[in-house]
Amino acid sequence: MSALSRLPYEDLGHSRVDHHRQLRTGIPEVILSEGKTGEQVMEIARSMVEGGSRVLVTRVAADRARDLLSVFPHAVHHDSARMVSIDASPLQAVPGVTVLTAGTSDIPVAEEAAITAQVMGNAVERHFDVGVAGLHRLLDVLPRLADARVVIVAAGMDGALPSVVAGLVACPVVAVPTSTGYGAAFGGISALLTMLNSCSPGVSVVNIDNGFGAGVLAGMINRGRAE
Amino acid sequence: MSALSRLPYEDLGHSRVDHHRQLRTGIPEVILSEGKTGEQVMEIARSMVEGGSRVLVTRVAADRARDLLSVFPHAVHHDSARMVSIDASPLQAVPGVTVLTAGTSDIPVAEEAAITAQVMGNAVERHFDVGVAGLHRLLDVLPRLADARVVIVAAGMDGALPSVVAGLVACPVVAVPTSTGYGAAFGGISALLTMLNSCSPGVSVVNIDNGFGAGVLAGMINRGRAE
Amino acid sequence: MSALSRLPYEDLGHSRVDHHRQLRTGIPEVILSEGKTGEQVMEIARSMVEGGSRVLVTRVAADRARDLLSVFPHAVHHDSARMVSIDASPLQAVPGVTVLTAGTSDIPVAEEAAITAQVMGNAVERHFDVGVAGLHRLLDVLPRLADARVVIVAAGMDGALPSVVAGLVACPVVAVPTSTGYGAAFGGISALLTMLNSCSPGVSVVNIDNGFGAGVLAGMINRGRAE
Amino acid sequence: MSALSRLPYEDLGHSRVDHHRQLRTGIPEVILSEGKTGEQVMEIARSMVEGGSRVLVTRVAADRARDLLSVFPHAVHHDSARMVSIDASPLQAVPGVTVLTAGTSDIPVAEEAAITAQVMGNAVERHFDVGVAGLHRLLDVLPRLADARVVIVAAGMDGALPSVVAGLVACPVVAVPTSTGYGAAFGGISALLTMLNSCSPGVSVVNIDNGFGAGVLAGMINRGRAE
Amino acid sequence: MSALSRLPYEDLGHSRVDHHRQLRTGIPEVILSEGKTGEQVMEIARSMVEGGSRVLVTRVAADRARDLLSVFPHAVHHDSARMVSIDASPLQAVPGVTVLTAGTSDIPVAEEAAITAQVMGNAVERHFDVGVAGLHRLLDVLPRLADARVVIVAAGMDGALPSVVAGLVACPVVAVPTSTGYGAAFGGISALLTMLNSCSPGVSVVNIDNGFGAGVLAGMINRGRAE
Amino acid sequence: MSALSRLPYEDLGHSRVDHHRQLRTGIPEVILSEGKTGEQVMEIARSMVEGGSRVLVTRVAADRARDLLSVFPHAVHHDSARMVSIDASPLQAVPGVTVLTAGTSDIPVAEEAAITAQVMGNAVERHFDVGVAGLHRLLDVLPRLADARVVIVAAGMDGALPSVVAGLVACPVVAVPTSTGYGAAFGGISALLTMLNSCSPGVSVVNIDNGFGAGVLAGMINRGRAE
Amino acid sequence: MSALSRLPYEDLGHSRVDHHRQLRTGIPEVILSEGKTGEQVMEIARSMVEGGSRVLVTRVAADRARDLLSVFPHAVHHDSARMVSIDASPLQAVPGVTVLTAGTSDIPVAEEAAITAQVMGNAVERHFDVGVAGLHRLLDVLPRLADARVVIVAAGMDGALPSVVAGLVACPVVAVPTSTGYGAAFGGISALLTMLNSCSPGVSVVNIDNGFGAGVLAGMINRGRAE
Amino acid sequence: MSALSRLPYEDLGHSRVDHHRQLRTGIPEVILSEGKTGEQVMEIARSMVEGGSRVLVTRVAADRARDLLSVFPHAVHHDSARMVSIDASPLQAVPGVTVLTAGTSDIPVAEEAAITAQVMGNAVERHFDVGVAGLHRLLDVLPRLADARVVIVAAGMDGALPSVVAGLVACPVVAVPTSTGYGAAFGGISALLTMLNSCSPGVSVVNIDNGFGAGVLAGMINRGRAE
Repeated sequence: MSALSRLPYEDLGHSRVDHHRQLRTGIPEVILSEGKTGEQVMEIARSMVEGGSRVLVTRVAADRARDLLSVFPHAVHHDSARMVSIDASPLQAVPGVTVLTAGTSDIPVAEEAAITAQVMGNAVERHFDVGVAGLHRLLDVLPRLADARVVIVAAGMDGALPSVVAGLVACPVVAVPTSTGYGAAFGGISALLTMLNSCSPGVSVVNIDNGFGAGVLAGMINRGRAE
Repeated sequence: MSALSRLPYEDLGHSRVDHHRQLRTGIPEVILSEGKTGEQVMEIARSMVEGGSRVLVTRVAADRARDLLSVFPHAVHHDSARMVSIDASPLQAVPGVTVLTAGTSDIPVAEEAAITAQVMGNAVERHFDVGVAGLHRLLDVLPRLADARVVIVAAGMDGALPSVVAGLVACPVVAVPTSTGYGAAFGGISALLTMLNSCSPGVSVVNIDNGFGAGVLAGMINRGRAE
Repeated sequence: MSALSRLPYEDLGHSRVDHHRQLRTGIPEVILSEGKTGEQVMEIARSMVEGGSRVLVTRVAADRARDLLSVFPHAVHHDSARMVSIDASPLQAVPGVTVLTAGTSDIPVAEEAAITAQVMGNAVERHFDVGVAGLHRLLDVLPRLADARVVIVAAGMDGALPSVVAGLVACPVVAVPTSTGYGAAFGGISALLTMLNSCSPGVSVVNIDNGFGAGVLAGMINRGRAE
Repeated sequence: MSALSRLPYEDLGHSRVDHHRQLRTGIPEVILSEGKTGEQVMEIARSMVEGGSRVLVTRVAADRARDLLSVFPHAVHHDSARMVSIDASPLQAVPGVTVLTAGTSDIPVAEEAAITAQVMGNAVERHFDVGVAGLHRLLDVLPRLADARVVIVAAGMDGALPSVVAGLVACPVVAVPTSTGYGAAFGGISALLTMLNSCSPGVSVVNIDNGFGAGVLAGMINRGRAE
Repeated sequence: MSALSRLPYEDLGHSRVDHHRQLRTGIPEVILSEGKTGEQVMEIARSMVEGGSRVLVTRVAADRARDLLSVFPHAVHHDSARMVSIDASPLQAVPGVTVLTAGTSDIPVAEEAAITAQVMGNAVERHFDVGVAGLHRLLDVLPRLADARVVIVAAGMDGALPSVVAGLVACPVVAVPTSTGYGAAFGGISALLTMLNSCSPGVSVVNIDNGFGAGVLAGMINRGRAE
Repeated sequence: MSALSRLPYEDLGHSRVDHHRQLRTGIPEVILSEGKTGEQVMEIARSMVEGGSRVLVTRVAADRARDLLSVFPHAVHHDSARMVSIDASPLQAVPGVTVLTAGTSDIPVAEEAAITAQVMGNAVERHFDVGVAGLHRLLDVLPRLADARVVIVAAGMDGALPSVVAGLVACPVVAVPTSTGYGAAFGGISALLTMLNSCSPGVSVVNIDNGFGAGVLAGMINRGRAE
Repeated sequence: MSALSRLPYEDLGHSRVDHHRQLRTGIPEVILSEGKTGEQVMEIARSMVEGGSRVLVTRVAADRARDLLSVFPHAVHHDSARMVSIDASPLQAVPGVTVLTAGTSDIPVAEEAAITAQVMGNAVERHFDVGVAGLHRLLDVLPRLADARVVIVAAGMDGALPSVVAGLVACPVVAVPTSTGYGAAFGGISALLTMLNSCSPGVSVVNIDNGFGAGVLAGMINRGRAE
Repeated sequence: MSALSRLPYEDLGHSRVDHHRQLRTGIPEVILSEGKTGEQVMEIARSMVEGGSRVLVTRVAADRARDLLSVFPHAVHHDSARMVSIDASPLQAVPGVTVLTAGTSDIPVAEEAAITAQVMGNAVERHFDVGVAGLHRLLDVLPRLADARVVIVAAGMDGALPSVVAGLVACPVVAVPTSTGYGAAFGGISALLTMLNSCSPGVSVVNIDNGFGAGVLAGMINRGRAE
């Protein structure tokens, strides 16, 4: 308890940057770029990098990504994931995480999850566009799922894929609803509800479009398993 | 148009009973028992039977069903469907309608659909509890779906079954969300949204728990095909 | 079953393109342009065309349509439907599909449905702006509905037209809620709910603005009838 | 203004009973029985009757109705409307109010509206079960609507009737959504939204199942017209 | 009935223009500009004007308004109401309609209502920014409300004004929720619900931001009264 | 901080009872009876009373109240508030809290708030049934509000009263939406939204039917003022 | 794939019982008692037990539990969890699962999770009533969380506990929203949304009141880790 | 009462400006810039300033802020709060208000609250980015909260911070949900519900992003205490 109260952080005025969470939890520090000014993002990133953290900037617009790359030598821009990672000393990758998408439009969210898990030291296998409307595509990749220790499934619209996958594998399924779709997709609510109501045990759900959260959870499960 | 204005009906005060719709559309007359008094149901049924209609009473409680059976010699109580049918001269059955359910609890709604289609003169094949959580159960009945001309799929909770089925068959799929489930199932809303957002073309949706509507539509498609 | 597992498709990395669904189901392949990059759309279209499919690109912006037309000689831009069809060998048209709209603003969705059904080999009759606020307009076209084997009705705002139409015809009605309207129209939710609660049997519903889905279903019903 | 501050009322502790509103607005005093104890209802009724008001008790259970009848000689129990009226000196009835329902189950709400308008001194014409699923029933009563000065339309489920009626008459239409229906009827929300989005001008809406409110408004319009 | 079927209208392909509704109902023809192309609006307006109708174009952008003014000599642009009226032979104005707003931001909707009522031949009195947060402002205009035969009240946010007004006047109150506000105002839903649940009898509600609908209804009530 | 970690509580297995919060915050301990077994309630109450706390049991059914009264000599049953208070050494009452209700049915919630504030040592003035539908009733009690330091307003249905009150007083208004009403009242959601969107500054809101929360807050404000 | 198609199950007509899923996934078979008849539950249980499965019956009423206990010798009734487990050969327990609740009323859901994890062969540690309103209670048990490999947190009302816990531990947190609460708790929606929006990485969510799902997931993670 | 009716205000046509509310309630006049034209804002501000009021313009865009600064010598632009204050004679500051935010993105709303309280004559202490995901940050500032007489907590996403804070302090907590977040944050609804369901007594809630409202309430409580 008193250890808790003495945990160090840096107070930037607008933000308080942890310099120990990564050690404590193994999770890279994340900066949600949306809703912050460019200056704030830069300042937080600098504090984290100086603190020795692996850093992920999510939902980062292209120009802001360029700014980060020009400042941090280890920064990498993951375009389709709308993400910048800054990771000076990558961890050795533990195999076991597989990422699936129902459709092509779910790829950005899936990539956010995949990159996150990779930065946490996981090897990630990807199979995209295997939605239930053409079941043979999923059955085709099924043998590849046998070695997975945790599967991330990103799906929008009807969000039916995680239920089907969870019935076919013996490991946890992390379901990520995406805002893909229109009309009664309601920006991902339809997929979210489908996933929460999954008839297949072993499924849990994160926020709509929350690739980062799915990646952290999957990475945690896979690394925990490997400890 | 002037034909329209001269269409006969009987005005019971509380209800106006059509004596020609069945001729016009082939659909049996339906009485939704819920929200009506016992006397009203009985009076409407009597007027319809006297008018020569095939009659379906839906959502009928057990005691009310008994009352109907004691009055109408041709009445049959379909217990699990919560339905009474009164049909003096059954039509010859045209094959082609298949009814599936995701789970055991969806059977009452599926039966309402099946009985409705049967009364309209369709032969109905049933396969229950073939939800996506155990895909092999669906794949096992898949060969039987090849001859279907229209498939009704009743599912609650995640409502994922119609999407999967529609990807596997070449005929229309009538999806019926059921109020099965709890929590974020929201009394069938989750399944309804899933079905509306189905990625598989060929799916259309009726109201939650509306087995009657699904049965009429499927019967209409199948009979229309056979004309 | 094992046939299912051997079904061929082309894996483009971001998408897996079916080269047999059309044979299997008779439905043209569709590419939802929204949420995909221009390159992805082009690549998928190319794979489909090369696979011999009839292709529909939906929700396609004007400039993207131009790109498609410049590449595919058989491509046609359906402006008001926001659609491009690529169909080298049109099917012979089976009559029987009628498309109605409640108002002028529902035309784009109705056209998406109509073009889809046409590409599937159906002759489509159109009657626009026959909403219930001026019932004589609907009654005026009523005689024309007598020959329809399936009617698509696109309506926004109060969404009342399908209920009225279904009470007047003896064939299935495919209701398409549109996002036309403002305020408590809630982007089509009001019309969607109206249609799901239709008192007239024979109505089923597809997603808001889902003209493609309505067209497929109607085409399937009409072609199935004609087989 | 100072007149306003001097308006008399009786403070019963739990309720403050107006003894002048009826004079001021012509509207009978109403007691919503639900949510009040039997004693409170009785005490309020007594104070109103002694103040010389016409009184309406709404949503009153059968036993509570009996209690009121045993105490107030002029009390009348309107069974299907779940209402008790206490009206010592009925007003002369002005013709002009017509009440329609879409179905049989909407009658209780319609009756609440009708009785309310009658107590306000309006003659009320009723036509029940004229919903849009069988349009000829509505067209059959259409000539009777020509003399209406205001039409109340009670409808549940798809709530489509007011839109159709308003397109056929030249007077205001007061739409009352009812909680009739199931599933996506959502206890009247579907009908409420339909009515709010009516394409026909001249429609306004009151709360779900609010027959009293509809009756007051219609009575006010009809009496105002007759002044 | 047969009169109904013979009612004339002009079919422009995309729209069917009534040439008799105004005679039948006294309501000016309205064109909702949003969701239509500029050409469609122009064509419909032309057909209406040639048919002799009073025309209202609502939700019309500034440039489209200019186009209409350049074509129709009698067109008037009502800027704050986002409306163009085309009315060659104005009716004589009947006094009795009063329009109130809770705040300054509700004025556009209120003006839409006021202009509509004026075009229908009503004299309209306006009092803006008399919301309940400063009750003395409302009490100050209260004496002016005594002569009103119908009051339109436009309010967003808490939507409380119609309830208060209806308790102070003896005539119908037409409540128009506006989309003014933020957060839990939910684009007018909060105000809409408040108004539907008004404790004061005599209130009815139209769609969010539906000034046109409120104006028609109020005009109808006031003119009906004056007949 | 380390003080925090050493704060004592009693672990009953199912519950952990604070024996210092009252000292720390001045708020009586509360037991929400709903959702707990009778035994759990009794055990928690006993632990609290032995710990020297003032205790409030809320939402307590009549028979459970009797059980509590039979065990605790200082227990008092507040019938209309559905509450039992156990308070051996009442505090001296500080004047300044006023509780208003819009209607008669809001009294139980208002009483819960009033009793709570009283147990915290506040004198509470009550004025019931002063809703905005009859504004003169509110204006009549207005002079009594001048001395209030904080006003609690309980209202269901349109929930308009807090906005009006807050415009008339110079102290904080604690708004409590109640589940009074039907239809679009949605169990208090309508009133809740109204209050959250109040145009009058100085209003804050607690949960639907949360009289306890309102009483605590008001008591805290009034006592804080008096310190 | 062909292995998939040959997976055995027993078809009881109303249900198809898997006899291999447990082998395949390690998850005990579950029967959701709600929505099934007593006979159906008994028949399914019998088939599962005969197939050698560990069985869990959830949401089982007291009398139905008695029936099961009278038939199956190994059946155990977990009263507060509303559950019956039938497990002839318990697995050896792997430590690592901790279950927390925010309040006393969340215990039934937490127990459902705990029993499920135990039947899967996990040792479960429980700490109840450690909600954030009294943070010292959580901090007091914090040292006990250090050894957890996965934490289940059940919370209703504000649902804030999982966010706080996930910030303090380095392992996955499975959040279970419960339907505890009233008013704007909306039967668990409030807690569900809170958890989905958790700012702390490592949190995932299951359906409202879905203790079984949480238990399966936690058990799977913990056992996977131990493999 | 008659005093009330004589309260002066200035009628600008579009707005009625109070010239006494500030005297009456101590609250500065506020102009919500959104939804008003630039001219309207300027005119209202001018009238208020001439009336001697302290003025706050909220949600003011940068260019409009510049216009105000060029006209009013005492105007100050609070950039991050999107606010302009015009205050010729600042009040002496009473200490006691503390403003917390859960994250960096909540600062604009928190600043709106802080500036408002300051203009009302309160000294405000700020601690930003102390959300529950890193509890040690909150515990670190806890000693600073001991002197607070009222705490404003702005939080988006899971909105959990106010519950935790209210369990740690003995004064009222004003919770402001912010629209920070994405997906199931639903523009602040998630945080709003969390706060309404807070298990910690002493919490009340204002509208989403309503920093002004929170500031007024807190200022009122703190100044009231100091009187």
